[in-house]
Amino acid sequence: MRSGAKTTELRLIPVAGIPLIEPGTDLVSLICEITENQGPALRDGDVLVLAQKIVSKAEGRYVDLATVEAGERALALSNDVQKDPRLVEVILRESRQVLRHKANVLIVEHRLGFVLANAGVDQSNVDPRRGAEPVLLLPEDPDKSARLLHEGLRRRLNKNVAVIVNDSLGRAWRLGTVGVALGAAGLPALRDLRGQPDLYDRPLQVSETGFADEIAAAASLLMGQADEATPVIVVRGLTWPAKASSAAQLLRDAKDDLFR
Amino acid sequence: MRSGAKTTELRLIPVAGIPLIEPGTDLVSLICEITENQGPALRDGDVLVLAQKIVSKAEGRYVDLATVEAGERALALSNDVQKDPRLVEVILRESRQVLRHKANVLIVEHRLGFVLANAGVDQSNVDPRRGAEPVLLLPEDPDKSARLLHEGLRRRLNKNVAVIVNDSLGRAWRLGTVGVALGAAGLPALRDLRGQPDLYDRPLQVSETGFADEIAAAASLLMGQADEATPVIVVRGLTWPAKASSAAQLLRDAKDDLFR
Repeated sequence: MRSGAKTTELRLIPVAGIPLIEPGTDLVSLICEITENQGPALRDGDVLVLAQKIVSKAEGRYVDLATVEAGERALALSNDVQKDPRLVEVILRESRQVLRHKANVLIVEHRLGFVLANAGVDQSNVDPRRGAEPVLLLPEDPDKSARLLHEGLRRRLNKNVAVIVNDSLGRAWRLGTVGVALGAAGLPALRDLRGQPDLYDRPLQVSETGFADEIAAAASLLMGQADEATPVIVVRGLTWPAKASSAAQLLRDAKDDLFR
Repeated sequence: MRSGAKTTELRLIPVAGIPLIEPGTDLVSLICEITENQGPALRDGDVLVLAQKIVSKAEGRYVDLATVEAGERALALSNDVQKDPRLVEVILRESRQVLRHKANVLIVEHRLGFVLANAGVDQSNVDPRRGAEPVLLLPEDPDKSARLLHEGLRRRLNKNVAVIVNDSLGRAWRLGTVGVALGAAGLPALRDLRGQPDLYDRPLQVSETGFADEIAAAASLLMGQADEATPVIVVRGLTWPAKASSAAQLLRDAKDDLFR
């Protein structure tokens, strides 16, 4: 046993009764009220995983396509990818560069470094009252969102609750989206096990694990894509080394990446 | 709520006391004996996640590098990637093609379609009694391994227990390994939510989720890389549509993949 976590049962507990989120919602207050009244009461060492979408909604990250004018580049690209030129314009504004595109597919490097389809700009589950043709962007800075939530929970509850902002992203090589961490606070996003002995007491070779991503994927199992009733999950039973890091640590440097 | 799973708590329970696995071990008997005696008693609807390594060990998938002669191609490539030419020879035998390589990095398409480093050939946690310089290959056919375990558990316990064989793999774009499903039986590896209404009753756009991969990642949180005491995890509380599929369904066709 290298860590107490490994013999402990892990529990993932949905926080029931999260309402549709309006811009300006104080998520710390909302989550504290719900968990204090209906449970689960948050504990030191819990990880709170929030769906990106509710964080974006609370931050009011809507853009109304009806107000967007597509530039030349968006017009040309929209033809290739068969998407609304105004949507492509919004995607380009959120992106550092386009990595791949073909009909119905537009893979970009987001301005924050995430590689994902459509820069995370989403037309599903977007509140239609937010404009004539509203779309929703990723949070402005998901690591900062996670940090503010982590600090807010500590202030309000005097508990050390780690926070992950997750989203379901597509992948190279494999089909299906999986939950990944866009933002993290209060835990190490990446865990370095290199140098630890293996079972036969030789040093382990490659052992950096995407800890926050695995937690994000686990929580995603309970969130469901079309179900905003469970966008907040409590993960209980993990332990980790004291040193925390942001989810930005999970991003491979473009220059070291053989697949972009 | 689209599914009963979403309101239910999810539990991940390590199966304690799994010994070091020898070639020929009957994993069904071993797991039944341990779970019957010490718990957790397996139930209908449980998912049993097994680390690839114990499945490979039970299948005796050892190769002794001392018996391997590197061919010309392996010799040339080993120079570029700075690995033992005999190890590179074994990796090439397990692979359809080399996708990328540089010093210390060798990314291949495995003969079964997985894209991963070193074709999954592993020198860590390998029983040193299995040869002068033993390495361990992936299971011969992890979907078949999962199916045999699934059927064996049904026969022995008269319970419907889904099975996933997982491994920790690296990824494009992001650092850190995450658990993925190499084999699956008794559940849909990929779940297609397309066509379901979103929160505001419009059709969801892209909603195929890597269900088995998210379960594999969740279980990986409890397994630990250097800790073979917890290579078997019970995941309890998920529900899924009746239609099961193998993990091969998670593999993107090479011709549709923009990143290989």
